[in-house]
Amino acid sequence: MESFFESAPPLKERDIISEKLKQFIQNDDTNRRRVVCVTSGGTTVPLEQRCVRYIDNFSSGYRGAASTEYFVKAGYAVIFLYRRGTCQPYSRSLPDNAFLECFEFTHESNIQVRETYSEAVKTAIRDHHAAVERGVLLKLPFTTIFEYLQILQIIAVTTRSLGPHAMFYLAAAVSDFYVPWESMVEHKIQSASGPLDIRLVQVPKMLSVLRKKWAPMAFFISFKLETDIKILLEKADMARKKYEMHAVVANELLTRKEEVVVVTENEKISVHRDKSQAGSDVENPLIELLVGRHSAYIKDSNTQQTTQTQYR
Amino acid sequence: MESFFESAPPLKERDIISEKLKQFIQNDDTNRRRVVCVTSGGTTVPLEQRCVRYIDNFSSGYRGAASTEYFVKAGYAVIFLYRRGTCQPYSRSLPDNAFLECFEFTHESNIQVRETYSEAVKTAIRDHHAAVERGVLLKLPFTTIFEYLQILQIIAVTTRSLGPHAMFYLAAAVSDFYVPWESMVEHKIQSASGPLDIRLVQVPKMLSVLRKKWAPMAFFISFKLETDIKILLEKADMARKKYEMHAVVANELLTRKEEVVVVTENEKISVHRDKSQAGSDVENPLIELLVGRHSAYIKDSNTQQTTQTQYR
Repeated sequence: MESFFESAPPLKERDIISEKLKQFIQNDDTNRRRVVCVTSGGTTVPLEQRCVRYIDNFSSGYRGAASTEYFVKAGYAVIFLYRRGTCQPYSRSLPDNAFLECFEFTHESNIQVRETYSEAVKTAIRDHHAAVERGVLLKLPFTTIFEYLQILQIIAVTTRSLGPHAMFYLAAAVSDFYVPWESMVEHKIQSASGPLDIRLVQVPKMLSVLRKKWAPMAFFISFKLETDIKILLEKADMARKKYEMHAVVANELLTRKEEVVVVTENEKISVHRDKSQAGSDVENPLIELLVGRHSAYIKDSNTQQTTQTQYR
Repeated sequence: MESFFESAPPLKERDIISEKLKQFIQNDDTNRRRVVCVTSGGTTVPLEQRCVRYIDNFSSGYRGAASTEYFVKAGYAVIFLYRRGTCQPYSRSLPDNAFLECFEFTHESNIQVRETYSEAVKTAIRDHHAAVERGVLLKLPFTTIFEYLQILQIIAVTTRSLGPHAMFYLAAAVSDFYVPWESMVEHKIQSASGPLDIRLVQVPKMLSVLRKKWAPMAFFISFKLETDIKILLEKADMARKKYEMHAVVANELLTRKEEVVVVTENEKISVHRDKSQAGSDVENPLIELLVGRHSAYIKDSNTQQTTQTQYR
């Protein structure tokens, strides 16, 4: 892990990001507010230092964006750590290129919302602005695995003071393999000379360090995506144990928008989208469940603390 | 090339795309209108059939989007073949997440454009809608190299009837290497077992087939991007000869927004952004130059045709 960070290209705007985070946390007037870090979208792995080609992990970022909205609704302040260009909170229900598609130009040279999108656009803009104005949404973008892990570390260290009130909801699709920066070629790989062989090494398992060292008191949810349903639950449970996650959300590529399974120490809870409701999603009941678990975790932590204080 | 197409996953919506293209071309009432196919953004190469990981080629799509605007201004009908999620014509000057950033909610529950973005937003929406309404902009999205090459073939064949009035402006960053579909694993590659070795084979050089078979009369511009300035011009000229391009635009990764070199049979023309103008770009003079060359090419073709007819 340390060698990974040492060899990574230095994070640009490190100080600015730190400062933004500190202010965001301090914005918490009651000092009891819950803060969740939602990670979203896929990380990239450059194949060249002056990067033209990279390996990417598929993720639209829909789940992270949707979950962010539900966390805000549930009273959380959300640090939305997202891949540049992926789905954003409060614009899920809008078409691609919403900006050019949703508006029209009137004869009086004014811009107006097209009738069909009227409600969706109003809701999106109103809710987004409300979240930003209330200081409960901080968006931080990343592209590469190097940026992602470095920003995540800053978030973990900054939110440590919140103890069990901090939560990590790790929905981003993080690269498993990468090319170490120092063994990377500087220039674009030339295509003249036959097939290309690439050797990728494993990304150090950041989850362990994050959970145990960077934010040992926080509540942790990670995700396991597989395309093979047969190995999914087993792998989710292995990950839960190995990284001491409080829950792992297991999802299968083709059905992930309909159903997920929340794997905890004692349970496997299947969470479904409410099919009787048009436009419903699986994130709504999922966040409801996790918020309940987080409440129980905070209560537990407080009881333990009180007990420790009493018997000290 | 044929084996590449045979092994590629079949293009979804092939018939719809063909139909759209036919209508777009027929929309040309004078039958003398120039049509340019602008390709933009990077193609992806899946590493798994049920794709979680893929290799991507870096490209914001800015050049393609900007060039499209200038081609429309110069009287062209533009087929904009773009990578999903990349930069779009008429929204270059807007911030990321323009949709949520540019608007605000008034007390009367109306949406209004923020003062600072007022002019940019009006121009963007007005020009975009004008282009769409005049029938001079057709947008077709792609993601993978398989989609890209298959759609490009349909475009080439459909625009063949336009003879020298058709132009290909190939600004997309096309993958050089891929994993053939039939040798691809079905499920997500497991990360448990040490380093990952990937063998990629070369994508067949589609430029030859496109230029010589699919659209032998069209005017062709391709792009060469390198990070190493030392080999750039030489490689651009080699590509021009090999694929019989009418011009190759050579650009270097770090300076590509300031300067490009247009390599033709007899010239190397350096094209610069007008630095005395705020917000100017290199695409403006570049398209001006290429439109002039295209005019000369059409004139030449007509003369040759007339001559051939006269002496037949």
